Amino acid sequence: MKDVQKEQSIYPLSIEVVGIKDISYPVKILRKDNNFQSTVAQFSIGVELPSNVRGTHMSRFIEIIERHKHNINGETVKDILKDVRKTFDANKAFIKLVFPYFIEKRSPVSRNSSILEYKCGYHLTIKNNHIVTNLIVTVPVTTLCPCSKEISEYGAHNQRAYVTIELVVKDFIWFEDIIDIVEQSASAPIYPLLKREDEKYVTEQAYNNPKFVEDVVREVYTKLRQKFKEKVGRIKVIAESEESIHNHRAFAVIDKEG
Amino acid sequence: MKDVQKEQSIYPLSIEVVGIKDISYPVKILRKDNNFQSTVAQFSIGVELPSNVRGTHMSRFIEIIERHKHNINGETVKDILKDVRKTFDANKAFIKLVFPYFIEKRSPVSRNSSILEYKCGYHLTIKNNHIVTNLIVTVPVTTLCPCSKEISEYGAHNQRAYVTIELVVKDFIWFEDIIDIVEQSASAPIYPLLKREDEKYVTEQAYNNPKFVEDVVREVYTKLRQKFKEKVGRIKVIAESEESIHNHRAFAVIDKEG
Amino acid sequence: MKDVQKEQSIYPLSIEVVGIKDISYPVKILRKDNNFQSTVAQFSIGVELPSNVRGTHMSRFIEIIERHKHNINGETVKDILKDVRKTFDANKAFIKLVFPYFIEKRSPVSRNSSILEYKCGYHLTIKNNHIVTNLIVTVPVTTLCPCSKEISEYGAHNQRAYVTIELVVKDFIWFEDIIDIVEQSASAPIYPLLKREDEKYVTEQAYNNPKFVEDVVREVYTKLRQKFKEKVGRIKVIAESEESIHNHRAFAVIDKEG
Amino acid sequence: MKDVQKEQSIYPLSIEVVGIKDISYPVKILRKDNNFQSTVAQFSIGVELPSNVRGTHMSRFIEIIERHKHNINGETVKDILKDVRKTFDANKAFIKLVFPYFIEKRSPVSRNSSILEYKCGYHLTIKNNHIVTNLIVTVPVTTLCPCSKEISEYGAHNQRAYVTIELVVKDFIWFEDIIDIVEQSASAPIYPLLKREDEKYVTEQAYNNPKFVEDVVREVYTKLRQKFKEKVGRIKVIAESEESIHNHRAFAVIDKEG
Repeated sequence: MKDVQKEQSIYPLSIEVVGIKDISYPVKILRKDNNFQSTVAQFSIGVELPSNVRGTHMSRFIEIIERHKHNINGETVKDILKDVRKTFDANKAFIKLVFPYFIEKRSPVSRNSSILEYKCGYHLTIKNNHIVTNLIVTVPVTTLCPCSKEISEYGAHNQRAYVTIELVVKDFIWFEDIIDIVEQSASAPIYPLLKREDEKYVTEQAYNNPKFVEDVVREVYTKLRQKFKEKVGRIKVIAESEESIHNHRAFAVIDKEG
Repeated sequence: MKDVQKEQSIYPLSIEVVGIKDISYPVKILRKDNNFQSTVAQFSIGVELPSNVRGTHMSRFIEIIERHKHNINGETVKDILKDVRKTFDANKAFIKLVFPYFIEKRSPVSRNSSILEYKCGYHLTIKNNHIVTNLIVTVPVTTLCPCSKEISEYGAHNQRAYVTIELVVKDFIWFEDIIDIVEQSASAPIYPLLKREDEKYVTEQAYNNPKFVEDVVREVYTKLRQKFKEKVGRIKVIAESEESIHNHRAFAVIDKEG
Repeated sequence: MKDVQKEQSIYPLSIEVVGIKDISYPVKILRKDNNFQSTVAQFSIGVELPSNVRGTHMSRFIEIIERHKHNINGETVKDILKDVRKTFDANKAFIKLVFPYFIEKRSPVSRNSSILEYKCGYHLTIKNNHIVTNLIVTVPVTTLCPCSKEISEYGAHNQRAYVTIELVVKDFIWFEDIIDIVEQSASAPIYPLLKREDEKYVTEQAYNNPKFVEDVVREVYTKLRQKFKEKVGRIKVIAESEESIHNHRAFAVIDKEG
Repeated sequence: MKDVQKEQSIYPLSIEVVGIKDISYPVKILRKDNNFQSTVAQFSIGVELPSNVRGTHMSRFIEIIERHKHNINGETVKDILKDVRKTFDANKAFIKLVFPYFIEKRSPVSRNSSILEYKCGYHLTIKNNHIVTNLIVTVPVTTLCPCSKEISEYGAHNQRAYVTIELVVKDFIWFEDIIDIVEQSASAPIYPLLKREDEKYVTEQAYNNPKFVEDVVREVYTKLRQKFKEKVGRIKVIAESEESIHNHRAFAVIDKEG
């Protein structure tokens, strides 16, 4: 059969990325407690295409996922990327996977247990055999408005907010440790299960810790730098607040090299 | 050219609905202030298909929208539905369109003006020449938790919530009048623009009016029945609250015939 | 602490459903090959609320999920529902969970293996101790337009389509068996991994089996009735086709009692 | 009232962007035919925040939109950005708005008219009084696989694909002219309304013009450079194909400075 992809390209232009996206696979992620978290990841994979080749053999991306499917986690994802680079003989390649990640949480007073969903992921690029690894984590938290608290006789508007971290890591870092920092930097953490004594506790905790999205990104950024020091490079922190008094989001972004 | 759709169906089964969906068109909606609101509507249209016909001529749905496109609004949408019924010689047909709808709001103290987006729509069905018209409205509001307020020494968790109304109408009703009732039944309304004096006002207003989603649906339902009386049939009220202390939604649904 | 939820409601109206939604939990689903599929499910759970009670104790829904979390599957989901009914002393209750479900597929010629994602789920309601169980399955397939093939000298437009089945089951039925029927009723099944000889095969297979969405729902419905007979009650079949020559979807729905 | 935002920040860190997002407003966009297209835009607006200031006065973003709301279009959006920069006394600021944009299309043979939705937008940044303007356009098209056509005895898989252009413009460019180039570079354009003679035409047109996503991005990029020459700087072209034989997307990205 003719291999159409191997033909010469009509327009002699390199293509920065060619690949597949929106493909889901069940994966296992190593947890800090040494167990594996079974979850479902969405993958994107791609390579650079030289100017003289017409097309990529897309089915090979799936073959690579198949080869690695029984052991996909934060370490082995580097092997997948190397496999991509080698299979396609590409100078540049990337892989990104995002998945729900679950951590058991105990409510602050009654100590009831439940599990909370975080969105986590890896985004790796390779160029001339040099790999850059990004960890991605989104943490739901509560923010309570400092201005609303200050100017009102009682109460203060508060809401769910989402803090997303993108971290260039040079060493191993647990999602759990990043999440801890974020939850300590918001007005209050979020829990699936709260009994009345817990609800009283987090209500008052949030009221005692009013935070703008600006406060959150500065505090999270500073604590990440302090904790991980030379283990991390570039840090990006995004906080988005689903304002309870508005129908839009307030957001803040810190994005700095190490 | 052969008309494949007109062939006999292999399996002699009637099909409850055949149609098109996810098609957007610019429309104009008559507002209570007698101006027209230009907006963009997403349409679904369909008909019942008898057991002996293989397929529907889907392009005719688009032709019908084209015929009516310069005058699509809450009244003329009935003419579109009649046109569908007639063009397809169908016993049953439906049309549904949903669109963002904008209303100017003045902030409660500084009286600053801004415009808030609501999701509105029409859902009409025809059967044996009898039309049933549903109005659909989704209103963003603030809810403040009565339990959190009662048990906490200070503060109370609050959040954005969405109240959706589906109303079988027998007479003309303005979206604006439905929205008014919903905003008066929540802990506080939502505004795009609030200056500090306004923020103080709505913060305290919400604290003074704690509401569960259960309270909201009961109050909205009761007020809709009182206001519109014999103008409405079935009323469905859904309240969904983006809990600020959890990562899930609390919801309540009232759904009763008139 | 005061129990605000137990107060009398101001408006003496029963509420059809009160509950929580958009909560994710890792679950294990029993597969036809007798292994368990680890995946992530989104839950909604709710109960009817009598007219004299102000509010539901929402945290109990989470406690129930926690009690059952180590063994959530298609059979045990009934126990969760019974637990809900009992815990809340409710006349009516429901539980719905949907999750990605993965099945290994071999490509038709080269017999290469890869795994395809389906959306599956359970929707159970209980009323006066009578449980009704719905299976939900969405299957991606290819549809090739019979009209386009008939009138064109060569080629025929084709596209990805999604077939959703909602099935009232009175006995145990595997998702795998429903999916088989759907894949045999489309123009061609879909595979994650196809080598060139496979691509030739499915291209020609689709061209040889042109199907309207109307054809698909009729064939799927008929085959489901034939295969499952008295094991099923009401069957709803929805086919939605992402038309490659349009920017909207064509759809057809069959919805019939047994 | 105390101005909490004006306080010193606890952590002396500049914040790259602070702003609001997910806010919708009705807008009018000037069309190539000199009429105005009424549509609904989603806005994001933000500024850089110096290290010594605690918070931004978010309500001012809304006031700015309010001041300009009666005349928001591709030219005046620059005035909004200047107003943002001035109001916040910020060194850097950005504004992004995206909206459905509608163009009348005549079907290729029967010349029937209908209107097709494109996603368009502007993304402007200002830094030290220098404005960079990005046009954004997403065009739905048909792609037919060259490999599938070549290796199959008859037929070829085809599907809807989306081509997104991000263009740094130094002069005025119409969305319409960008869209034309994209539609001429795919296997076939897409139309809402096609009668049978049109369906035959586009089916055969697509079969005669097989294109990989790699072919599409190269051809679109080359034609954009040829047509707009020194009017444009950086050009990014993304093509994503909803593969009809798979359940994932194939994609290609060209992203080059002028």
